[in-house]
Amino acid sequence: MENQNNIGETSTNQIIKQVINYWLDRNKAVTNFINKYPDDVYYKEVASNRSRAIYLFGHLIAVNDGMLPMFGLGEKIFPEYEAIFLSAPDKSVADLPSLSELKKSWEKLNATLAEHFNKMTANEWLDRHMSVSVEDFKREPLRNKLNVLINRTNHQSYHWGQMMLLNP
Amino acid sequence: MENQNNIGETSTNQIIKQVINYWLDRNKAVTNFINKYPDDVYYKEVASNRSRAIYLFGHLIAVNDGMLPMFGLGEKIFPEYEAIFLSAPDKSVADLPSLSELKKSWEKLNATLAEHFNKMTANEWLDRHMSVSVEDFKREPLRNKLNVLINRTNHQSYHWGQMMLLNP
Repeated sequence: MENQNNIGETSTNQIIKQVINYWLDRNKAVTNFINKYPDDVYYKEVASNRSRAIYLFGHLIAVNDGMLPMFGLGEKIFPEYEAIFLSAPDKSVADLPSLSELKKSWEKLNATLAEHFNKMTANEWLDRHMSVSVEDFKREPLRNKLNVLINRTNHQSYHWGQMMLLNP
Repeated sequence: MENQNNIGETSTNQIIKQVINYWLDRNKAVTNFINKYPDDVYYKEVASNRSRAIYLFGHLIAVNDGMLPMFGLGEKIFPEYEAIFLSAPDKSVADLPSLSELKKSWEKLNATLAEHFNKMTANEWLDRHMSVSVEDFKREPLRNKLNVLINRTNHQSYHWGQMMLLNP
């Protein structure tokens, strides 16, 4: 091995930074995609009888927004999205927010999360999230905030893959 | 904070374990999905005029197989998949391996990678991968093996999301 890293606090912070960087990178990919075509394209289904791209986009905002309370960082910014993009499947709610409104929500949420993430210490990332009890966390210490971010990044990749099937 | 983690070597090893665990978990999700329906279902396109599920499955094997040489762990197990699932889009190569053959390759590759991953030290994970030069790595130390695994996990989530659109 050419490079002997110093394994310790520095490497812990570095890996956390890598996980956050990848999250930011995936956000950018979705942002680029959602700004690529005229708005009406995103009102199409990504596959026959499946969700529309605009619904998946709103779904990502609603799920990612949940990290704020889950990480003890405050309330959701868009609690009204829950009924539209989480509890209900696409085409069951008459009026979705417009694409331009969702784009603004996406930007605001990403900026808010990024600001919090940049301030969080390694200890905070490795501490339990608010959906796991103190007792359960003692038994399962991997149920920490960093794990949620890894999960949410992959959740975003999952739906972004679906949105990319859109036929403009 | 109820839990003050000890940030250092232990936390570095723990986070690496979390990243590997998530990778293993996503493998399991794909394995469950690919064994869910009769074989002929996977020969359908995931969306109109898009790749068939069997092609995406082979594509995942071909891409994940590339981690062996990239991590300096040996040659690819299935180098012949490159021409079929990487260089060529779906429906351009006449004969794909059968689904049962691909399932065996998938299992063999996952077992091989898991065995290597379990033995790798934190220093190895944070060292450069073989596609980045020593010089470039000095400037960009985040281009390490762990970053590749984070990337490949998300790549898998991306295509798994597409496969899940399959209408059985």
